[in-house]
Formats: sequence, C-alpha cells, structure tokens
Amino acid sequence: MGISMVKITLNEGAGGEAMQKFIKDLVSRIELKKTPDGSGLDKLEDAGILKIGDTNIALTTDTYTVNPIFFPGGDIGKLAFCGTVNDLAVMGAQPLALSLAFVIEDGMEKKDVERIMDSINEQSKLSGIPIITGDTKVVEKGKVDKIIINTAGIGVVKYDVSNYWAKPGNIMIVSGSVGDHGLSLLAKRFGFESKLESDCTCLWNVIKELIKIDGIYSMKDPTRGGLAACLNEIAKKSNVGIYVREENIPVKAEAKVIGETLGVDPLQTACEGRLVLSVDRYSVDKIMKILKKFNQDTSIIGEVKETPKGKVIIETLSGGKRFLESPIGEAYPRIC
Amino acid sequence: MGISMVKITLNEGAGGEAMQKFIKDLVSRIELKKTPDGSGLDKLEDAGILKIGDTNIALTTDTYTVNPIFFPGGDIGKLAFCGTVNDLAVMGAQPLALSLAFVIEDGMEKKDVERIMDSINEQSKLSGIPIITGDTKVVEKGKVDKIIINTAGIGVVKYDVSNYWAKPGNIMIVSGSVGDHGLSLLAKRFGFESKLESDCTCLWNVIKELIKIDGIYSMKDPTRGGLAACLNEIAKKSNVGIYVREENIPVKAEAKVIGETLGVDPLQTACEGRLVLSVDRYSVDKIMKILKKFNQDTSIIGEVKETPKGKVIIETLSGGKRFLESPIGEAYPRIC
Repeated sequence: MGISMVKITLNEGAGGEAMQKFIKDLVSRIELKKTPDGSGLDKLEDAGILKIGDTNIALTTDTYTVNPIFFPGGDIGKLAFCGTVNDLAVMGAQPLALSLAFVIEDGMEKKDVERIMDSINEQSKLSGIPIITGDTKVVEKGKVDKIIINTAGIGVVKYDVSNYWAKPGNIMIVSGSVGDHGLSLLAKRFGFESKLESDCTCLWNVIKELIKIDGIYSMKDPTRGGLAACLNEIAKKSNVGIYVREENIPVKAEAKVIGETLGVDPLQTACEGRLVLSVDRYSVDKIMKILKKFNQDTSIIGEVKETPKGKVIIETLSGGKRFLESPIGEAYPRIC
Repeated sequence: MGISMVKITLNEGAGGEAMQKFIKDLVSRIELKKTPDGSGLDKLEDAGILKIGDTNIALTTDTYTVNPIFFPGGDIGKLAFCGTVNDLAVMGAQPLALSLAFVIEDGMEKKDVERIMDSINEQSKLSGIPIITGDTKVVEKGKVDKIIINTAGIGVVKYDVSNYWAKPGNIMIVSGSVGDHGLSLLAKRFGFESKLESDCTCLWNVIKELIKIDGIYSMKDPTRGGLAACLNEIAKKSNVGIYVREENIPVKAEAKVIGETLGVDPLQTACEGRLVLSVDRYSVDKIMKILKKFNQDTSIIGEVKETPKGKVIIETLSGGKRFLESPIGEAYPRIC
C-alpha cells in the first residue's frame, strides 16, 4: 500500500491521510473556490455555501460506486440518495432538491436499474425530497463496473454548525453503532453468514429535530475511514484534542466478529447513517433524548479538550491510552 | 444495434429515440419530480427549476466519460465544466457555482489528473464561475475507464425560455458549424490527419449578451445526437414542425470529409459549444449581430411552422425534402 509520486493509487481514495493530501493538492489548482460571500472548496466541508438574496444555500455532490450494488440493508440507489441528503443535513441545511446522474454499463440488466430507481423513489418519498434533474450515460462493457451514480443536492441552511467549531468542553456523541455499513458489505462479499445490515439511511428526519436545539457545534456523518477519520477531521479542523473511551463506542457483536475475522477495525470502517456531534454540556440531555428516540444505541463517547491539538486519543478497553489514527488507506475494495 | 427488452445497450445512451424511451421509463418510476412551485424531472429539460424566496434557481447535472480524454480543442475537464455551464445558460440561468466530482482509476498518471484540473481552472476563470464543492473517488483498475467526471451546477434564472415554447413563425438559428466535437474526436481516435477541433466552449459569455434581447423562445445546445436530435426535441416538445435548408447549415469542410469517410452524418454528431435558437422575426437581426460577433459561421437555418407536428423537415442540397430524424443510436463509442 505504498504511495506513488507519479500514479494515483487506491490509497488516494480511501478516506485517510493519503486522500486528504491528494485532494488538497487538487483543490489548490482551482483558483475560484467560492462565491464572494460564500464558503467553498478550500474548506473541504460536506457542502459549499453561497448566498442568494438573504438565504444561505448549500450545494453538495457525491459519486457512488459500490460492490455489491445490492447489499444487506440497502443498495447503491439508497446509498446515493441518502449520502447526499446527509451531506446537506450535517451542514445544518434543509435539503430542497437532488439531481441524479447514472453511468450504466452496456449489458446491465434493466430490472436491476429499475430496482435501484425504485429504491431511490422510496427514499425520496420517505424524506419528502424531490429529484428535479438528471442525466443518464451508457458506456461500453468494461468501461464502468455495472453502475456509477452521482447525486448532487441543494439545501437552505437553517442552523450554523461547522466541523471547524468543536470547542474544548464539548461532549462527543455518536448516534448508533459504528462500522455496520462497511462490515456488512465485506461480509456479503466474502460470503459470510451474518445478520449485520448496513446502517445506510437518510438523516434529515433526525437532524430536522436536532436543529431545534441550541448548542450543537459540529455535526458530521462518518463515511469512508469510519469514526476514526471523522473524529480526526474534526480534531484537525477545530484544532482541538478529542478524547474517547472505547467502552462507550457502540459496536455490534456481529460487526466485531466480522472485523476480527478480516482484520478490519470497526472504528475505521464506513458508516452511512450515523452522526457524530460535538455539543455543549447544557444541551446534551435534550440532544440525547432526540437521538435515542431514533436509535437506542446512541452514546456519549467522549469529550473535547484543548490539547493535543488535531489529535484523537482513545482510552482502550484495557485502560491504556493511544492515538486513534485515521486509516492511511483501506486494504479492501470500495464500499461507498 | 437491436434494442433489448432485458438488457441495457449502448443505444439507450446514444442521444436518440432509444435513449428518450429508456429515460422516460426511468423517470416514470420517481414520484417526487419537482418542488411545489418548480419544474422538474418530468420536463426532461437541461435543468430543474425551484423557487427560493422570489428567485428561480436552476439545478443541473451531467456526467462525462470520453475517449480520448485529451482531444483537439479540449479535454474531459473543459467538457465537464462547459457542459454544465451550458446546461444552465440555455435555461436562461446565470451560473452561480459548480460542483465537481471525480471517479479515477487506480494507476492513472497524476500529471493527467493535474492537467485536467488546470483545464477546469482555466474555464472557471474565463467564465468567472467558481467550483464550491467536490468529491473524489479512486476505484480499482478496470472499474472505470481512466476518469469519469460529474459536474452539477446552480444558477439564477434571468430569462424565461423553454424548448416547449418554439412558435410557428419563429426563425431557427445555429450559432456555428455543427458536428465538430464528435468528428474531431473520431478523427483523433482513428488516427486521421485533420485540423478539425472540438467546438467545446462555455456559452455563458454569449448567452449573457443574448438575454438582453427580447424574442428568444427556445434555446438549446446540441450535444449527443447532434443538431438532428436537438431540432427533433424542440419540434416534439413545442408540438410544431421545423423546416431547415441543408445549404444553410454550416458544416466545416474537414468535418464533411471525416463524416463521409466514416459514414457519420455531421448533423447527427455531437457539438459541445453551439446554440440552436428559435426567435421571433423582429429580433432576428439583433440576435444575429450578437452571435456573429462570437462566431462568423452563425446562420439562419430555417423556420418553425404549425405542421407536421413534432417533425423536422430538411430541404436537401439536391432540392428534395425529407424528414431529418434523430439518430436511433450511434455506431461508435461515447464521445461526450
């Protein structure tokens, strides 16, 4: 898993340090990164913000390629719809509309595309968010692996929250068990018998409730690189130290077994429907009450301190302390 | 080039009748296609429209896969940036910001990605439109052909124009020679010596001038399926008959030669920087003056009549008349 100076490798897309560096290099080549009164590409947030009249509008994009395309708890269509809804929602933005763009491989079964479309429709109805524009390309066999989906979305910012704003004294919360998405896909790919399902879901319905409460400083949905990458990103952007206790991080028994068998850490593996929040002490109870209504496994996992700046420290089950690092790369093919 | 009932074929992506049918089938599976006061997916326009406050906002998306990725007159980056700018601009919308999403194949040369990024940056600066959010995925070798780029964009509607609004009596204009993009890429792919370059360009700078003039009813940039698909789409959506004279349609000599050699009709081949307008008689002179400033080959190619509804008739060089059909499919791999 070396990092090449000349060629792009899978590490550059794995959600870890190598990807951060690669993306920063790419972003540095674009000069116009935001509108005059907006925030943009250089922030490396889940969405860019621009002002239209007095309204702050969020724009986000994500491309989805996943194998298998149908997996326990979801499929690439649900993933693509919810992923973009979530990118808007964690910016405190109410999603208004999505775009949907397919690249389909010549020879793909029509019924599979229809099943994906129906799954997208179901999520759209559940969340009340329309798809107002789209694009479809069909490419020759071997030019794409079955199907790639891009969704972009726009929303209206209703709540000011930022991964640059976690403050010492904040409490860290995770809204359910971690690693379910990544580990359930790996289980399916390797043919394991397992009841574990992806946590893939649209988070707008829960965030809609959360943003009625003051005191949320940062909010992020861990995806590639899992909880570990998510916490490290917040620690770096907010220039704080984050302390978590392993015993408080919810990991399902099935996830532990699959993770141990494959040598994959659930804390470094993708979620697709969880929230990581840093909130002030006075709001914790109200926020926990809302989150527990949606998921009983919601847990306070730690707190924010002044130092060590940009680092995450985990108190392990054995009582030891170590840095919880972002994965450098991933040892297995794409799962989100 | 048969159409399968079970599997998706290249025809479903070729910009012709088969694609129209396939996309209509897909779109019919989505129930929420627009916001309450907007226009959306069911219109099959270049962008969806939603209202934010008193402002009509356009949202559009397009995914680009092209071979070769660097071609005479452009590259996949320029194509992706300008294509989405153009989709907004032809809706009468001033582009405000774009998103940019890459899917990159493991092993791609970094310098090629950087060259693409620099090309996008150049177009962004020329048009003054920022890229405010992005996404990058790296996938295993063979899971994508080098690079796929999605751009989505949002804009503010400044001028009401629609491909449903062409009226009998309107004059049809094309803003330059047709088929340059498709034929220059084919020439490069087949190793022909040719000076023909892609017409790939951002049209906002010209449309910004055009929308100061009243009397534009419909405006579209012909892409896949070329001028023929574009005119047929307008004829169908507006429920009118469109008459064009072949002698008035600008086709470059090099394009003719390549087209004849390969058996490809320049009228059915992709442009990436042309406009097709239907305008009222009183505005023709002013509009032609603006368009000629940008491209001397701009030409009045015909007019709109009541009948035959939904059809395009071409008076050929020999003086005969025939229907100008949308291509059903394309006999060569993707070029845009």
